[in-house]
Amino acid sequence: MPLQPNQCQLVAIFAANVRRRRIELGFSQEELAERAGVHRTYVGMLERSEKNATLQSIERLAIALEVEPAVLLTTPGSP
Amino acid sequence: MPLQPNQCQLVAIFAANVRRRRIELGFSQEELAERAGVHRTYVGMLERSEKNATLQSIERLAIALEVEPAVLLTTPGSP
Repeated sequence: MPLQPNQCQLVAIFAANVRRRRIELGFSQEELAERAGVHRTYVGMLERSEKNATLQSIERLAIALEVEPAVLLTTPGSP
Repeated sequence: MPLQPNQCQLVAIFAANVRRRRIELGFSQEELAERAGVHRTYVGMLERSEKNATLQSIERLAIALEVEPAVLLTTPGSP
């Protein structure tokens, strides 16, 4: 049986980075969803580690958040 | 209709990085699949950009390839 999203460290790292960057840019979850072309509830679920995002979603969110995709997978403070 | 995996730049970047790192470590696709706990044909499909990997798969492959997940999403030569 596959892991639950919230049992995967990278899902939690991604969730925290999306939330932190979204707030940094001053977007609501709905605004970010619209910019990224995803359903408006998807961002909330991502930020609660309820979604196991794919590379395509990661790319869309990185573009909308104006960062490189790798940044969203990096633990803040790590080299 | 969602994009096809091979129409997404990040899918192609990930594919190239997995392949390059696998060869660097001297693993066959089957050996990497076994180390990452994924089906033995999955690695080949990933490397041909036929799969839209999820965060859980990215994490498993990064562990098996002994690199940070973000490294697999970084374009070689970019800062």
